[in-house]
Amino acid sequence: MRRVGDNQVASTSVDELMRQAIAATRSTYPHPNPRVGAVLLSPHGDVLAVSAHESPGQPHAEVLALNLVDVDSAAVLVVTLEPCSHHGRTPPCTEAIIQAGITRVIVGATDPDRRVSGNGIKRLREAGIDVSVGVLHDEVVANDPGYFHHRASGIPRVTLKLAATLDGQSGAQDGTSKWITSPEAREDAHRLRSENDVIIVGAGTVVADDPALTVRLDGFEGPQPRPVIIAGTRTLPTGLQLLNRDPIIYKAGGSQTVDPVKVVKDLGQRGIVSAMIEGGPSIAASFLAAGVVDQIVWYIGAKLAAGTGIPALPGDFATMADATDITIDHVDRVGPDVKISATISKEG
Amino acid sequence: MRRVGDNQVASTSVDELMRQAIAATRSTYPHPNPRVGAVLLSPHGDVLAVSAHESPGQPHAEVLALNLVDVDSAAVLVVTLEPCSHHGRTPPCTEAIIQAGITRVIVGATDPDRRVSGNGIKRLREAGIDVSVGVLHDEVVANDPGYFHHRASGIPRVTLKLAATLDGQSGAQDGTSKWITSPEAREDAHRLRSENDVIIVGAGTVVADDPALTVRLDGFEGPQPRPVIIAGTRTLPTGLQLLNRDPIIYKAGGSQTVDPVKVVKDLGQRGIVSAMIEGGPSIAASFLAAGVVDQIVWYIGAKLAAGTGIPALPGDFATMADATDITIDHVDRVGPDVKISATISKEG
Repeated sequence: MRRVGDNQVASTSVDELMRQAIAATRSTYPHPNPRVGAVLLSPHGDVLAVSAHESPGQPHAEVLALNLVDVDSAAVLVVTLEPCSHHGRTPPCTEAIIQAGITRVIVGATDPDRRVSGNGIKRLREAGIDVSVGVLHDEVVANDPGYFHHRASGIPRVTLKLAATLDGQSGAQDGTSKWITSPEAREDAHRLRSENDVIIVGAGTVVADDPALTVRLDGFEGPQPRPVIIAGTRTLPTGLQLLNRDPIIYKAGGSQTVDPVKVVKDLGQRGIVSAMIEGGPSIAASFLAAGVVDQIVWYIGAKLAAGTGIPALPGDFATMADATDITIDHVDRVGPDVKISATISKEG
Repeated sequence: MRRVGDNQVASTSVDELMRQAIAATRSTYPHPNPRVGAVLLSPHGDVLAVSAHESPGQPHAEVLALNLVDVDSAAVLVVTLEPCSHHGRTPPCTEAIIQAGITRVIVGATDPDRRVSGNGIKRLREAGIDVSVGVLHDEVVANDPGYFHHRASGIPRVTLKLAATLDGQSGAQDGTSKWITSPEAREDAHRLRSENDVIIVGAGTVVADDPALTVRLDGFEGPQPRPVIIAGTRTLPTGLQLLNRDPIIYKAGGSQTVDPVKVVKDLGQRGIVSAMIEGGPSIAASFLAAGVVDQIVWYIGAKLAAGTGIPALPGDFATMADATDITIDHVDRVGPDVKISATISKEG
């Protein structure tokens, strides 16, 4: 959050201002609340303040911006998300905006939370404020996709992360898998972790590797994602690193397996908006098969296995009709490797 | 080949002229000869003629350009490859250049053919001509990589083409494999075919699919790549499409298998400079294991198999140390799919 002098950025475009509001949220981790950024302008279009909602219980971005300036000088508010109209942990933003005498509000996306969902915009308009909605809508959603997914569906947005050789092997037959991908790709995977509230992992991986599953990035100050262990019928030995990090553990009775649908529903009820699956392969396959994976991030290491070891996705591929159509959304180089981001193609 | 008026492109840069010379070769298929393009200029730098060597036995690009114009008006020759200095099917280009009174020659790459290999440049310089060498060298080589590879090594440049799901499966367990990739990717693979003198295929694929292995592209008028069938100990049934296309067939005696090293040596002796392997998986694996694959072109279809069917590369991946390091040179989107071009990383 920062204050900007009257004389700066006088003639910035609305898109540019919305980008500034989005950028203000870059280091915020407010889940289960949304990432919200705001820019406050004078009647002449001078930027007076830029702010973001930092964490639950802290002031909302709109109120923060208004508190930063002499409200008589403020006229236009640019905000990534529809201002709230309900009493939560803080009073509704709509009332603060109306009381400050703001005449125009520019909104990136309507808030899918059913307590807001158009009511904020309606309240502002009823008070005579000129409200525009939908500026850089897709960029606003992409800045916090889990929030929008969670409020629309009640369950977290689930990202399946995989790393494999070009020919699809996550490890060799003897269990060795270091290092399929480069340090650059592994660092990118830590960034991916930092964007998720929880990391889902199977008991097999936990017992075999005793992983920390923490975000290890220079300068990272956000919250560490909470571990979620799919234990099934296994008993976890004591002394594992994850057991000191308040894991959520899902067990299954008898010879049952843990139902991924029940897992994501429970996580959603806990207010978890984004989850990443880190393995092992059977957990990946079971969540995929259950239809609860929204995004796949696949790191292709610059290696050929030239044979079958531990396939990234285990199971039998019986006939072509069984293949799952995906939409490849992004292809990026990451050091010597390639990162493919894809979504499951849903049938119309 | 075209004639250009005196008044055009007077102040074009040398790089731009070399690009024109390369572009002139775009629809030429002169193998086993090299692709060569030339641009002839007046003393004032006006482009007089642009030409390319069309096919074996046809005039070389340099001589073609000189024949197009009144040689007294020509002063500068831009040519992608070092002019030849030996009598082949046509007389040496160096003598035609000297006799035409050319004062400056700009060369893209020296000719690796040991009959030339610097002798052409030496001959021109001895005749008092100012010769520059190495303009857009890498682009010239990339315009005909097989030629440079063949003349340096005696064997063709071998491209292994594969198509697989994101998780590395080329087909399902029941043998179905249509369509892993999109029409756009399949068209791109036809372009790849058109760039190769021969297509290598195993008897298993030939018998199972009876493929044509022809280039099917709108407007393509180049030569069809010749089929190479790795028959091994199998007897090919009559009536197969490829048998009408003058295939080169490699057989193995007894229980032997065909040695890929012997295949590429023989192909090189036949003047074949570029070869593409189209399958099946065991042929791909055997050529890879023999170390004779120079480039891998891997089409990733926008699908997940989520299980093992027919892996793109069969065999056992026993331990990570067995993985082959590759260098990913290019990553391209092809319709909904991804094309990864890679080379085997050779140890220092």
